[in-house]
Amino acid sequence: MKATILQAARQIAVEEVPDPQIVLPTDAIVRVAASCVCGSDLWPYRGINEVREPRRIGHEFVGIVEEVGSEVSTVRVGDFVIAPFTYCDNTCPHCLAGMQTACEQFGGWGSKGPDGHLADGGQGEFVRVPLADGTLVATPEQPDSGMVPSLLALSDVMGTGWHAARSARVQPGQTVVVVGDGAVGLCGVLAASRMGAERIIAMSRHAPRQAVAKEFGATDIVAARGDEGVAVIRDMTTGIGADAVLECVGTKESMQTAFDILRPGSTVGFVGVPHAVEVPIGQMFRYNLTIAGGMAPVRSYLEQLRDDVLAGAINPGKVFDLTLPLEQVAQAYAAMDERRAIKVMLAN
Amino acid sequence: MKATILQAARQIAVEEVPDPQIVLPTDAIVRVAASCVCGSDLWPYRGINEVREPRRIGHEFVGIVEEVGSEVSTVRVGDFVIAPFTYCDNTCPHCLAGMQTACEQFGGWGSKGPDGHLADGGQGEFVRVPLADGTLVATPEQPDSGMVPSLLALSDVMGTGWHAARSARVQPGQTVVVVGDGAVGLCGVLAASRMGAERIIAMSRHAPRQAVAKEFGATDIVAARGDEGVAVIRDMTTGIGADAVLECVGTKESMQTAFDILRPGSTVGFVGVPHAVEVPIGQMFRYNLTIAGGMAPVRSYLEQLRDDVLAGAINPGKVFDLTLPLEQVAQAYAAMDERRAIKVMLAN
Repeated sequence: MKATILQAARQIAVEEVPDPQIVLPTDAIVRVAASCVCGSDLWPYRGINEVREPRRIGHEFVGIVEEVGSEVSTVRVGDFVIAPFTYCDNTCPHCLAGMQTACEQFGGWGSKGPDGHLADGGQGEFVRVPLADGTLVATPEQPDSGMVPSLLALSDVMGTGWHAARSARVQPGQTVVVVGDGAVGLCGVLAASRMGAERIIAMSRHAPRQAVAKEFGATDIVAARGDEGVAVIRDMTTGIGADAVLECVGTKESMQTAFDILRPGSTVGFVGVPHAVEVPIGQMFRYNLTIAGGMAPVRSYLEQLRDDVLAGAINPGKVFDLTLPLEQVAQAYAAMDERRAIKVMLAN
Repeated sequence: MKATILQAARQIAVEEVPDPQIVLPTDAIVRVAASCVCGSDLWPYRGINEVREPRRIGHEFVGIVEEVGSEVSTVRVGDFVIAPFTYCDNTCPHCLAGMQTACEQFGGWGSKGPDGHLADGGQGEFVRVPLADGTLVATPEQPDSGMVPSLLALSDVMGTGWHAARSARVQPGQTVVVVGDGAVGLCGVLAASRMGAERIIAMSRHAPRQAVAKEFGATDIVAARGDEGVAVIRDMTTGIGADAVLECVGTKESMQTAFDILRPGSTVGFVGVPHAVEVPIGQMFRYNLTIAGGMAPVRSYLEQLRDDVLAGAINPGKVFDLTLPLEQVAQAYAAMDERRAIKVMLAN
């Protein structure tokens, strides 16, 4: 089959690799219908995370079940399935508590997992899915092709934006600020809107992203950043601060902004992978500011969000502003790297 | 009147000072019945917080209303009242949200406040109480003298322990660990017990404190600390971790212990004033660990905890293992400083 290989920094292409096989009775093989490029894929692509040897890549995909192992019972050959960005058994104590990213059999796509075998990357033709019963969520029937982008978005960015809003304890009627206008931040806007927030302030300085934010329910856009952005938000919230803040970047500056605009007693929901972030513990103590969140247990939200997509209640697929065939994966990475696209879908 | 003056590090005594007067129509004058020494009073006492000039001290007291200003309506002369460790108007947006420690008119005892006048320290004969309607909570009738220690404990340590448990979102049936066996940690045990925790593990290596912890509802005592303590707790929770952790110390080591024993997706409730604490943001991200808490809005819990004390449901006054007359304030500080007492009550 064909699969994307990252050979070294900025050297990425589709190559011929062995077809995956069922190796454990709990496995399934999925024929990928669509995958996409994540902001976090750019770290090894840019060489920020060192690439020591050629590796598979891609952790977001949807597709059709091609084959199942003898112990797989919840998905069947022919099902259209959504894969969360990590796999899990969905039966261990952490999974049962809704924390599938802490699963006792947790593993990621594109590398060897706890079972000792490769789980293929999502940016390819097929994927061996470990723990298929725990990991995959099927749609009741084959979705219209127009639904595919939104179902694909559930694999990571929409589930992660949802986790930010849930971690920040967004409630109906609240004023919510979303820091970060990447695909996750935009999905955070959509999540806050779906949860009934009354006022949603998106911090964004890019016109195409501002447009998606507004489509997703943002009532206000703030282009200012840093201290200036804080002053604007403080003014908009009559000095009180926001009822909830979604931190969807992960830098030191964005995290400090999140705390500086937060109302005392409220919560920053953070899902941006932290890079050199310092948590202002003294400020948190003084004003009872909470920080909650982390690597999103997307699996726990999949059924609910799938139903929302199929019912037309949410349309997170709008974050894909560029679609390319799998063979043009290099162009997809370049477009993301150069910020010419919010998020690129790869169609098989 | 007589009031405690901290002249310089380790120089503390009761001295003669001017009687307080009503200066604003929202003031009350309270005749202190009992006060106490807080762990945080030891910082200036020990010279860790510099003492630049002689100062009043003490922020925990109960007493009888001696006089009220013309605009005071909720407490009357003769009422027995509990004062929280900071004062507040209880009407601003932050107070109405239960965050009285972020009150727009927030102030502390023993220093000049936002009204430009001294609010006396609690370790004295009388206190001018600003914003008396917002700050003070009265008992329905004069309490028995045996109730006074428990009502005094509500002024800070019990309200703070309660805040730790509430911030950590303690639920009935849970396994809760309390890090820290000072008066606040012990009150955290009592709070978790009152909230219905099934298993309460107190980390303590001092026999008298272990005894109080058990009286307050601790089901297990762990004397080990650091990595060893973490291993013991991990073992006790079958590798899963605690459902909630109350961090009642505020050091780097205690905070790290709190995170290391926490179940993925759960919360550290922290109320120990942080000293050189580093929040392990990477670990939090990986395991969805939340940190919540801060300077306790004791005022928001006072009515409920007062009723619990008067009903005999909680008895936090047991943290006072030494009672001295106000005149012996120097001995009280020495006993706390040398850890000969958990907490010292000063009786007037």
